Amino acid sequence: MLVVMKNDATEAEVQAVIREIENLGYQGIPIPGAERTAVCIVGNKGPVEDSRLLALPGVKETIRVTKAYKLVSRETRPEPTVITIGDVKIGGGKPVIMAGPCAVESEEQALTIARQVKKYGAQVFRGGAFKPRTSPYSFQGLGEKGLKILERVREETGLLIITEATDHVNIGLVEKYADIIQIGARNMQNYSLLRRAGRASKPILLKRGFAATIEELLMSAEYIMSEGNSRVILCERGIRTFADNTRNTLDLSAIPAIKEVSHLPIIVDPSHAAGLREYVIPLSKGAIAVGADGLLVEVHHDPAQALSDGRQSLYPEQFGELMTAIKRLNG
Amino acid sequence: MLVVMKNDATEAEVQAVIREIENLGYQGIPIPGAERTAVCIVGNKGPVEDSRLLALPGVKETIRVTKAYKLVSRETRPEPTVITIGDVKIGGGKPVIMAGPCAVESEEQALTIARQVKKYGAQVFRGGAFKPRTSPYSFQGLGEKGLKILERVREETGLLIITEATDHVNIGLVEKYADIIQIGARNMQNYSLLRRAGRASKPILLKRGFAATIEELLMSAEYIMSEGNSRVILCERGIRTFADNTRNTLDLSAIPAIKEVSHLPIIVDPSHAAGLREYVIPLSKGAIAVGADGLLVEVHHDPAQALSDGRQSLYPEQFGELMTAIKRLNG
Amino acid sequence: MLVVMKNDATEAEVQAVIREIENLGYQGIPIPGAERTAVCIVGNKGPVEDSRLLALPGVKETIRVTKAYKLVSRETRPEPTVITIGDVKIGGGKPVIMAGPCAVESEEQALTIARQVKKYGAQVFRGGAFKPRTSPYSFQGLGEKGLKILERVREETGLLIITEATDHVNIGLVEKYADIIQIGARNMQNYSLLRRAGRASKPILLKRGFAATIEELLMSAEYIMSEGNSRVILCERGIRTFADNTRNTLDLSAIPAIKEVSHLPIIVDPSHAAGLREYVIPLSKGAIAVGADGLLVEVHHDPAQALSDGRQSLYPEQFGELMTAIKRLNG
Amino acid sequence: MLVVMKNDATEAEVQAVIREIENLGYQGIPIPGAERTAVCIVGNKGPVEDSRLLALPGVKETIRVTKAYKLVSRETRPEPTVITIGDVKIGGGKPVIMAGPCAVESEEQALTIARQVKKYGAQVFRGGAFKPRTSPYSFQGLGEKGLKILERVREETGLLIITEATDHVNIGLVEKYADIIQIGARNMQNYSLLRRAGRASKPILLKRGFAATIEELLMSAEYIMSEGNSRVILCERGIRTFADNTRNTLDLSAIPAIKEVSHLPIIVDPSHAAGLREYVIPLSKGAIAVGADGLLVEVHHDPAQALSDGRQSLYPEQFGELMTAIKRLNG
Repeated sequence: MLVVMKNDATEAEVQAVIREIENLGYQGIPIPGAERTAVCIVGNKGPVEDSRLLALPGVKETIRVTKAYKLVSRETRPEPTVITIGDVKIGGGKPVIMAGPCAVESEEQALTIARQVKKYGAQVFRGGAFKPRTSPYSFQGLGEKGLKILERVREETGLLIITEATDHVNIGLVEKYADIIQIGARNMQNYSLLRRAGRASKPILLKRGFAATIEELLMSAEYIMSEGNSRVILCERGIRTFADNTRNTLDLSAIPAIKEVSHLPIIVDPSHAAGLREYVIPLSKGAIAVGADGLLVEVHHDPAQALSDGRQSLYPEQFGELMTAIKRLNG
Repeated sequence: MLVVMKNDATEAEVQAVIREIENLGYQGIPIPGAERTAVCIVGNKGPVEDSRLLALPGVKETIRVTKAYKLVSRETRPEPTVITIGDVKIGGGKPVIMAGPCAVESEEQALTIARQVKKYGAQVFRGGAFKPRTSPYSFQGLGEKGLKILERVREETGLLIITEATDHVNIGLVEKYADIIQIGARNMQNYSLLRRAGRASKPILLKRGFAATIEELLMSAEYIMSEGNSRVILCERGIRTFADNTRNTLDLSAIPAIKEVSHLPIIVDPSHAAGLREYVIPLSKGAIAVGADGLLVEVHHDPAQALSDGRQSLYPEQFGELMTAIKRLNG
Repeated sequence: MLVVMKNDATEAEVQAVIREIENLGYQGIPIPGAERTAVCIVGNKGPVEDSRLLALPGVKETIRVTKAYKLVSRETRPEPTVITIGDVKIGGGKPVIMAGPCAVESEEQALTIARQVKKYGAQVFRGGAFKPRTSPYSFQGLGEKGLKILERVREETGLLIITEATDHVNIGLVEKYADIIQIGARNMQNYSLLRRAGRASKPILLKRGFAATIEELLMSAEYIMSEGNSRVILCERGIRTFADNTRNTLDLSAIPAIKEVSHLPIIVDPSHAAGLREYVIPLSKGAIAVGADGLLVEVHHDPAQALSDGRQSLYPEQFGELMTAIKRLNG
Repeated sequence: MLVVMKNDATEAEVQAVIREIENLGYQGIPIPGAERTAVCIVGNKGPVEDSRLLALPGVKETIRVTKAYKLVSRETRPEPTVITIGDVKIGGGKPVIMAGPCAVESEEQALTIARQVKKYGAQVFRGGAFKPRTSPYSFQGLGEKGLKILERVREETGLLIITEATDHVNIGLVEKYADIIQIGARNMQNYSLLRRAGRASKPILLKRGFAATIEELLMSAEYIMSEGNSRVILCERGIRTFADNTRNTLDLSAIPAIKEVSHLPIIVDPSHAAGLREYVIPLSKGAIAVGADGLLVEVHHDPAQALSDGRQSLYPEQFGELMTAIKRLNG
């Protein structure tokens, strides 16, 4: 860490900073510059808590050279993490496709869609039983009844199941029924839920909050890993910007950026980012081309009757086209 | 709601939209334009769920004319809500100042600061016992021990207490010890916590998420109110933008914008928005000038030793200056 | 256009709106709703100027159903525009690759790089002679001397030349020497320069401003086309967001979004968006996968000695890898 | 400047960085850390051009400790700049109010408004003769005829005149007729225009681009000052964010942030930021409370008939209220 002094900081203030660094157990080396002095901290093994330094007179700012995360870092574990669930390997080089409706609406609906996505090559079935909705008056999901339908889907199709947990109560249920527990974008910094996910027996898919930096996403994954669950899959699903052509702006540069600093697999959800069916296929192709380890895609056989997000769901035939395109890209 | 058709939509598609609107129990009136047709929905009493309409062929988008919130709306309750707790009235015209350290660190620390802010005119003491921290390795707060210290502060100074609840477990404790329960920015869309807050016996201070629109903030307040707790105080604390001069960009235009559409009181937290002590006083004055119902300000007698966010805490004397400036503004 | 009235607007205010619409030469149809009235404007052939309507008492807002652009619109010209320059067709289905250094530094530098990118399959050579730099003290380009070097490059390699014009003086020079005139992101709303570009005899590559919406980009293209130059190539080069993993956030969803509404070709500049060499190859692949009509990529044989933006330039061998990858994607 | 090495950089790579720093004429001091080495550059008097360093193998990033601007910096000139034009002092402690219509429409319109704003205490009259409009089909201003009307306003009312120049041709005309030349947000990085403004005989009001950082705004002011014109007034007018409650988000924290690093005066344009008349008065009060040196406010006696931006113009009586409020704030 570098402690940058104000340009009118006194020598006594610089010395006070060095003493405080020594109090913290490290060493401080002053670097005089043309306009100001900076003090480099050396000797630390992990991140330095800078609040006391920032509060000292004459200090302008601190600049971190080392990141605060450890367990998620490629510097801790150089080889990429591969998460194996049955026959499915996430992060193993071949993209894994997770597909299904936004919400589980009925056994018939779920099975109809599941058979279709299975036919076209999906390996994991997605479908929400607990839906975090902006409005308290919107459809909130079927709850445990939905989870039981998902169990039926697995029994019949052999697809793995991913579904979202939104609180401390339903995460126990989701853990019981699902193969992968999804933590949604709105809960990315719900630390209580993250800690509970860190004690779960199933892998966690952690979505990036729509205003989260990559460092914050990794720190949230660190919460999960610090509790003992190292099977974490990251998911980019679009960030909030001024650009109004899509619901959110899919940040595909996050894929290589995350792969550079972390060993965790990362997949892309183009459906929520786009908000519009028309863009899901091109963005999916872009995601795979950029190096994503998989996709989380919404598919519905009758979007006009969907209880949520019908506008962004692919028709099964479109999903088939997408799978063909991906195979060609990956060939 | 207006359903905008694509410019090549067929007459049959327009008719299908009108039929679906009728299925939903409303009436659809087609409005032919030079380049496209739009269909106006009339006869609805509340918000229309548009997912089925959006999924119909030929539909380009829907445009909401009415907002999805009700209970928080000024159209439901024209006069401003005033929340009375003991002698303190929030929303009653005179700004209410809440001040104290970021985190409760010890009884001595809390009492020292509380006496100071009381002396200068604060009415509510703030201090975190449960801290949502980006890193699992940072100081997470004293927990219930911190709440007991806050109780001591109230006993000795008579100040009201506000402190944050971060999950379903600690909200019960916070409800027991505090006068106002704070829901932080990161939990603004933690709907499970919002519902629990809606069943609490104490007023809720709800912070705007740093990437939330005003409509989303109001929808989150609607969650609380829909469970029966109508004592909700909103709080603007800065939004995330590309501007790097401050930690977040304080959106002071949110104050008049919220007052136009909602009856709920709204206060401003300049400390977290700025991240730097130097900007807290000017931004506080700006907040009061723009019409905020109060402030939530960090004050620490020894910021250099603070366990978190020392850099943005005012010294007690600076807080005194701020109170003088506010009195002058409000005189 | 829809004129939305406030929920307490009087019948007289609604009538005044209808009269003003009639004054403007259109027809106003009132649509009564549960909470408010809206007035639909019909009979307009082009966009309605709404400032007078917005200023009337009782008016809440106007909502545009039709966009303000015409010449750039796919509704005006359904088939995609293909821009042919010599043997090169931009927008013709096969991606066109434009490559070269950020700035022309010397004849030797330009020719060295040009021969390499030609060898690997680039069709257009890029290189700045007039550089818009944030600092007045940074290298500003070689000026006309740089243009003469570019002419040499074309003579020797047969590559087409693209280079940036930054003002009314140098656009004349650029027009004389280059095959494609580039208008940079910072000048996207320099309307004087756009009008001049609209009278140029060469095609224009128009970069999206880093905070421009797609509608604004198209309106700027409309400025050029409205002066008579219909050979416009759009270019996405990243937008400014809070995400700090790359210099800007490449908005690849802009590609299908633009193709839906406009007939103009659109290419992608991954180098300026990323700011880092490491991300240029994956983002380039993503751009092609998502449907871009080409790429504008920085390549330098000796980035460590580059006078600007060395950090984002590919080595020639990396450019070779990229070309191989693109061929595979497009095969 | 600090050159941060990758965590797997070799000793040879560190040495190469140090040699390159020496080639540039400075000294490089290696600072070994727990996970990586950083190299501090000392001995530089001004900003270091980092592109060659960034391009060296093993380099992760550079971190600037010193800013690239000089002439605008408070470190160059500690006391605030006061710009005196006749009796008006901008930056002299008392806020200067500039008011008038968005566009000059006729002599009668301009004089009517000018008399009103003069009566309520404005010192400068604003009104556009050259309007930068997003659409080529919108009203573009009266041109020189508008400037002559502004001259009449000055003759009759004694108000100073501010009006916008948008290109190299009209800046000469504006310089002739106006007392202050405005450079608009869209032209903030039109370096050719900035250089011309730097050779003008009149003060320049430079608006912050709606996606510009403060450093970029200051660098643009540096362009003007580097050509010899040191009379520059900065203007905050809102930045583009995801928040849709106002047209742009007024960044009032920019005021103290700019005052900390620059000696130039800074005023606020609440009208363009808000886009809605209702928010102009509260935001104006906020701007003054936060320390702005003045305001640029739109006023129109008949907004319903305004040719542009009627929705955000205050009625003259509202402007009177605003002036009263400001006097009270400033008393």
